[in-house]
Amino acid sequence: MVGGVSLGVEGILLGRVLRLVGDALRACEAELDRELADSPVQLVRDLGQHVALAGGKRLRPILVLLGSALGGHAGPRATRLGCIVELLHTATLIHDDVVDEATLRRGRPSAHARFGIDASVLVGDHFYSRCMALLVRDADLAVMDALAGAMVSMTEAEVFQLERKRAGELSEADYLRIIRQKTATFMSACCRIGGLAGGLAADAVDALATYGERLGIAFQIIDDSLDFAADPARLGKAVGHDLREGKRTLPLIATLERATPEERAHILGTLGRPGVLDVDVAEVWRLVKVYDGVGYAVSRASAYAAAGVAALDRVPGSEAREILGLIAEYVIHRDR
Amino acid sequence: MVGGVSLGVEGILLGRVLRLVGDALRACEAELDRELADSPVQLVRDLGQHVALAGGKRLRPILVLLGSALGGHAGPRATRLGCIVELLHTATLIHDDVVDEATLRRGRPSAHARFGIDASVLVGDHFYSRCMALLVRDADLAVMDALAGAMVSMTEAEVFQLERKRAGELSEADYLRIIRQKTATFMSACCRIGGLAGGLAADAVDALATYGERLGIAFQIIDDSLDFAADPARLGKAVGHDLREGKRTLPLIATLERATPEERAHILGTLGRPGVLDVDVAEVWRLVKVYDGVGYAVSRASAYAAAGVAALDRVPGSEAREILGLIAEYVIHRDR
Repeated sequence: MVGGVSLGVEGILLGRVLRLVGDALRACEAELDRELADSPVQLVRDLGQHVALAGGKRLRPILVLLGSALGGHAGPRATRLGCIVELLHTATLIHDDVVDEATLRRGRPSAHARFGIDASVLVGDHFYSRCMALLVRDADLAVMDALAGAMVSMTEAEVFQLERKRAGELSEADYLRIIRQKTATFMSACCRIGGLAGGLAADAVDALATYGERLGIAFQIIDDSLDFAADPARLGKAVGHDLREGKRTLPLIATLERATPEERAHILGTLGRPGVLDVDVAEVWRLVKVYDGVGYAVSRASAYAAAGVAALDRVPGSEAREILGLIAEYVIHRDR
Repeated sequence: MVGGVSLGVEGILLGRVLRLVGDALRACEAELDRELADSPVQLVRDLGQHVALAGGKRLRPILVLLGSALGGHAGPRATRLGCIVELLHTATLIHDDVVDEATLRRGRPSAHARFGIDASVLVGDHFYSRCMALLVRDADLAVMDALAGAMVSMTEAEVFQLERKRAGELSEADYLRIIRQKTATFMSACCRIGGLAGGLAADAVDALATYGERLGIAFQIIDDSLDFAADPARLGKAVGHDLREGKRTLPLIATLERATPEERAHILGTLGRPGVLDVDVAEVWRLVKVYDGVGYAVSRASAYAAAGVAALDRVPGSEAREILGLIAEYVIHRDR
């Protein structure tokens, strides 16, 4: 079951993260706020302010900073790179919400609900471009290569996901391909550039990137599972939204494979149907529970998280490495 | 008056361009086709194919190739950079059409009309990312800096344009700022990276970039004026579209400044009103004609084009330089 003990883990973990890279993380946050507010154009500032206020877990900058701390250098460069990855992530979220027609993001109106599709497309593009300019100023081709590769992979996966949604089909293999390309490649890149900025040896950088990839897969499986398990107030988005939007995630894919033909037909008839009744959504939830779709998803996520932790054997032992291990644990047990 | 003699100029100009950089331009075109078709995801290929078939003037790659030819090197690198700028331009057009809700692009359904807003946002992002990856592979920080700077400027101007549109106000200064940041900065960057790839001296590269900037302003003023003057079949988009969408361009801005209060009220009441009558659009056109809005715009564009040509004095004399001069002339006289 997702959730339960997570608050404790989260609290302890956060304390250790803050002791090790708290100053850098706060500097990162300040730099991000500056970037989001730094424009002569009011609408850029307003939309930037709106997404800045929504906050976020800042998992990606934390990965950059911890990767960098592993090599012993959590200096201003790591802070800058942390800011860049969060800005890039913010740009993708702004566009994602347009594509998914999501009205809520972290408990507040999404940018496009508040500012319109046109503004969201354009400001998203602007933040993307700003990231590219910041990377050019950083002038490290290996870092640029990692992030450009991640962006190519992420955006391709987004299109593939849309294609499968339109086809009304999504196998477990498709699902894993999408989350690997979308979430995992980016988290892997965050770890990699952190390691590069920290001056880690090449094989340790590769190991760290492997950790980030496995962590990303585990993270996304759980993120998708929260739609079935979480308390909406705590999660900050409409529960059942994925279902109503017709989005197939691992708990549902597992349930579809185990259900009877009649149950399958009910689920497929409910998925993404406009004006679907709450009672039909509730029945899908019941089936996911009966077939333990969330349990299956969590077991898959746990295996990926464990593989990520195993990869850390090849990086130097330190407080940063221990925290990375705890993050892999937290990702499985979080409830938002 | 826009148009008239342009076919002749266009034919002669095209012949000279093709004689000088035809092979490189064809190689560029082939590389662009490959990039647009190179994806394991069907929807990326379909949308890429759709925009590839729409063609285009290829003015941006031509500027890169001519810039490079000025330095005497129109090799495979210039071809690659030409492909990158056209791919980048294509990505911006895909998003522009989403933002403008344009249903036609170069005489065919726009990408979002054919494939949906969601696909257009995502495939646009994918092509952007691919450009970044291609630039990283090219590994020249000065080139990346020029293009990243242009993208930051372009996307910021797009948001500013939207902001002014929502405010229902646009002065001539705002208009010039927008087209300078949107079109001119990118054309300037194309000239600059061409010159860099061609190995031109730094002051010649700067002069070439100045030419590109002035050319871009002239180009965009005329492009916007065509909405009032062109034959729709030849232009390949719906004439009067800008007007119906509420887009203020220089001929209209000039007309608004010269019109009587009653005429101003009519124009402002017609601009972007949903379900506006053809007869009201025709009246706005009549006023633009009465106050010679297009003539004013063309005279402004001509001054910018002339300033661009003057900047060419500081680059080495050659066939490439002569052609750049002719392009500035063509830009003023074109009718599509």
